Amino acid sequence: MSLLHRTIESIKPLNPSYFNLASERLDNLTKPKGSLGRLEEFAKRVVAITENTKPSLDKKAVFVLAGDHGVVEEGVSAYPKGVTKEMVYNFLRGGAGINALSRHTGIDVFVVDIGVDWHFQIENAEGLITRKISMGTNNIAKEPAMSAGEAVRSIEVGIGLVQDAVEKGYNFISVGDMGIGNTTPSSAVMSSLTGLNPDEIVGTGTGIDNKVLEHKVEVVKNALSFHNPDPDFPIDVLSRVGGFEIGGIAGVILGGASRRIPVVVDGFVSTAGATVAIGLCPEVSNYIFFSHKSAEGGHGLILQKLGVVPILDLDMRLGEGTGAVLAMFIIEAGVKAYNEMATFEEAGVSKKQEKHNHLATNEPDLARIK
Amino acid sequence: MSLLHRTIESIKPLNPSYFNLASERLDNLTKPKGSLGRLEEFAKRVVAITENTKPSLDKKAVFVLAGDHGVVEEGVSAYPKGVTKEMVYNFLRGGAGINALSRHTGIDVFVVDIGVDWHFQIENAEGLITRKISMGTNNIAKEPAMSAGEAVRSIEVGIGLVQDAVEKGYNFISVGDMGIGNTTPSSAVMSSLTGLNPDEIVGTGTGIDNKVLEHKVEVVKNALSFHNPDPDFPIDVLSRVGGFEIGGIAGVILGGASRRIPVVVDGFVSTAGATVAIGLCPEVSNYIFFSHKSAEGGHGLILQKLGVVPILDLDMRLGEGTGAVLAMFIIEAGVKAYNEMATFEEAGVSKKQEKHNHLATNEPDLARIK
Repeated sequence: MSLLHRTIESIKPLNPSYFNLASERLDNLTKPKGSLGRLEEFAKRVVAITENTKPSLDKKAVFVLAGDHGVVEEGVSAYPKGVTKEMVYNFLRGGAGINALSRHTGIDVFVVDIGVDWHFQIENAEGLITRKISMGTNNIAKEPAMSAGEAVRSIEVGIGLVQDAVEKGYNFISVGDMGIGNTTPSSAVMSSLTGLNPDEIVGTGTGIDNKVLEHKVEVVKNALSFHNPDPDFPIDVLSRVGGFEIGGIAGVILGGASRRIPVVVDGFVSTAGATVAIGLCPEVSNYIFFSHKSAEGGHGLILQKLGVVPILDLDMRLGEGTGAVLAMFIIEAGVKAYNEMATFEEAGVSKKQEKHNHLATNEPDLARIK
Repeated sequence: MSLLHRTIESIKPLNPSYFNLASERLDNLTKPKGSLGRLEEFAKRVVAITENTKPSLDKKAVFVLAGDHGVVEEGVSAYPKGVTKEMVYNFLRGGAGINALSRHTGIDVFVVDIGVDWHFQIENAEGLITRKISMGTNNIAKEPAMSAGEAVRSIEVGIGLVQDAVEKGYNFISVGDMGIGNTTPSSAVMSSLTGLNPDEIVGTGTGIDNKVLEHKVEVVKNALSFHNPDPDFPIDVLSRVGGFEIGGIAGVILGGASRRIPVVVDGFVSTAGATVAIGLCPEVSNYIFFSHKSAEGGHGLILQKLGVVPILDLDMRLGEGTGAVLAMFIIEAGVKAYNEMATFEEAGVSKKQEKHNHLATNEPDLARIK
C-alpha cells in the first residue's frame, strides 16, 4: 500500500467522548458557561484531535510550500515568475510577512521547494527543505499541470514533511504557499471540487486589473473544459489543473490528521489544498482549522460551501501562511485558557444562582496559580 | 482646570502626514500592495497615534476595572454580587480567563478596585490597585448610581492609571471590566448615548433566562425614564445610570489618547466606557481600537452605530479584557510586519509588472534579517 493510501487509512473519526470531557472541564472554569465562545470550541476540538485532556501546542511549525506554474505564460499574474524564487530567498533571510508574523507568534518557518523554477545552491540549508518534483508545472492552458504520479508524489511530500516534524517534537502545524500564478490553478481545483463557478471564485491575486481578471477567468474556464477533470478523483483534478504546492499542502493536512496533530490552513491557495485532502478523505475536515477569510476572490463563498466559519477576517490576501500563524495563536489561546484557568472550586468563586460560597468570604490564600 | 478638562484639552487630532509616511513604507514592503489588509490599517494608525514611524508596542498592560452595582438588588444577574470580589481574588492568583490570555500574549494585568463592595486586606498588593470611590453604586432603579463628583472622579482614576503606567514605560494599553450586574448600567449608558433602544441592546449577561431578560430590559427602560439623563452631558449619564468601572474605563481611554498611546477596548461594558469617552471628546475615537464583537446583547449594533469594525468576532462575552488582549496581539502583529519586513529593494525582489531584477538572479547574501 502506498504512503498516501496508508495515511488516508489511518485517519480516524474524532471520538465524541473527548468533546464531553473537555466540555465538562470548560463548564467548571471560573467564567459564565460558554462565555469564551469559539475559544472553547477550539479547545474542545484540540482535545478530541490529540485525544489528550491536557493538550499542549507548544512546538509550532508553518510549512511554506513554494512552486512555479506554467500557466504564468498566459499572463494571469501581476508579478513575473522569478518572484517565486526571489521570495524564497526573502523567506530564508527572514524578511517576508510570514517571517515577521512567525517571530511574533513563536512559530518556526520551514520553506519547502516542491517545484520552484530555480536551482537553489543552498539545498537543505537551514530553513529550506528541498523536495523538488520538477521545475514547475506545465501550462494548464495547453497540457496537464503534472502527471498523476507527480500529483501523488506532491501529496506524499507533504505527508513526509509532517512525519519529519513529528520526530522533531512539533505538535501544531500550519500550511502556507508561495508561487507566482498559483491562484489560477487553485481556482480551477476549487471550482472543480466544490462545483462553484470560476466567475464566483477567481480573484485578482497579487493585484491584476479588471481586464486581466476577465482573462484569468477565461483561462480557468478553458482549462476546466479542456481537461474536464473528474471531481470524484481529486488526484485527477490536482494533476490536470493543480500545482505542486497545492498537492503538498493537501499532504501536510492528511499527514497531520494521521498523526493526530491539528492543522491550520491559510487562505485561498491553502484552501485549494484542503479541498483536495477532503476530497480524498472527508474525515480529515475535523482535523482542519480554517484560519481566515481571505480577501482573494470568492474565498468566503468557498468556505461557506465547505461549511466552515473562519477564525479571522482581516482582509488579508498575502498567502505564505500569514493568516494561519495568527489563527494558530488564537487557537492556542483557547487551549491555554482551557488548561490554565481555575475551576469555581479551586478559586472559591460562587457559582451561578448559588448562595455565597462562605469559604471565600475570608481573605483567601493568594499564592499565584502561575 | 481639572485633571479631566486638562486631559480632554490635550487630545489632538491625528496628523494625516503620519498615515502617508506609514503607507509609503507599507507599499515598499515585499508583498502585493494592501495584501496584509487590516494589519496595515492597524500599523498606520499606530504610527499616527504615536507620531513615530518605527513604533514599538513592547510593553503592554491591561487594566481590569472592578466595581459593584446596587441594581443587582433588582435581580438582573445570574450570579450573586459577592462574585465580583471573589473574581478579584481569582485575578490576583492568576486563575481567571484574563490571566491565562494575558500570559499567552505577554501582557501585564492590573486589577483596579474602583468600587467593589468588599474591603480587601491586600490593598495595593502586587497586581491590585486600590482606587475605591465607594462600596459600589446605588441602585439605579431608585436613585442615581453616583454623584456627579464621583462620576468625574471615576474618570480621573482611569486617567491617573495611565499616567502611572506611562511612567513605568507602558506603551500599549487596554481595558476590561469585572462587576456583577454591570451589563445593566452599561446598557443604560449606551442606550442613552447612542440613541439605540434598550430592546435592541440589553443581553443575557452572565447567563439569565428569557424571563429575567425581559425584566432586565424593563429595569433599564425604567431607569432611563426615571432619571432621564441628558446624552449631551456624558457625566450626567454616567452619574445617573452608570458605574464606577464604566467611568474608569472612559478615563483610561482619555488618558491613553492624551499620552498618544493606542488603547484597546474590550467588549460590551468597555464599549459603554468608550461611549462616555467619545461623548466627552469625539476626537478620542481615533485613538481607540475596538477589539471584538461581543456575543452580549446588541454589541454588534452598537459598534455599527459607532461606525467601527471590530478586529475579532469569536462569540466571546466574558469581559475582563479577554477580547482586548487577543486584539492587542493582532495589532502588534501588524506593527511588527510594518517594522520588520524587508522592502523590495532590500530583498532583491522584483516589483509588480517589472522585469526581473537582475541583481537577484545570483545567489544572494543569506544573512538573516532577524
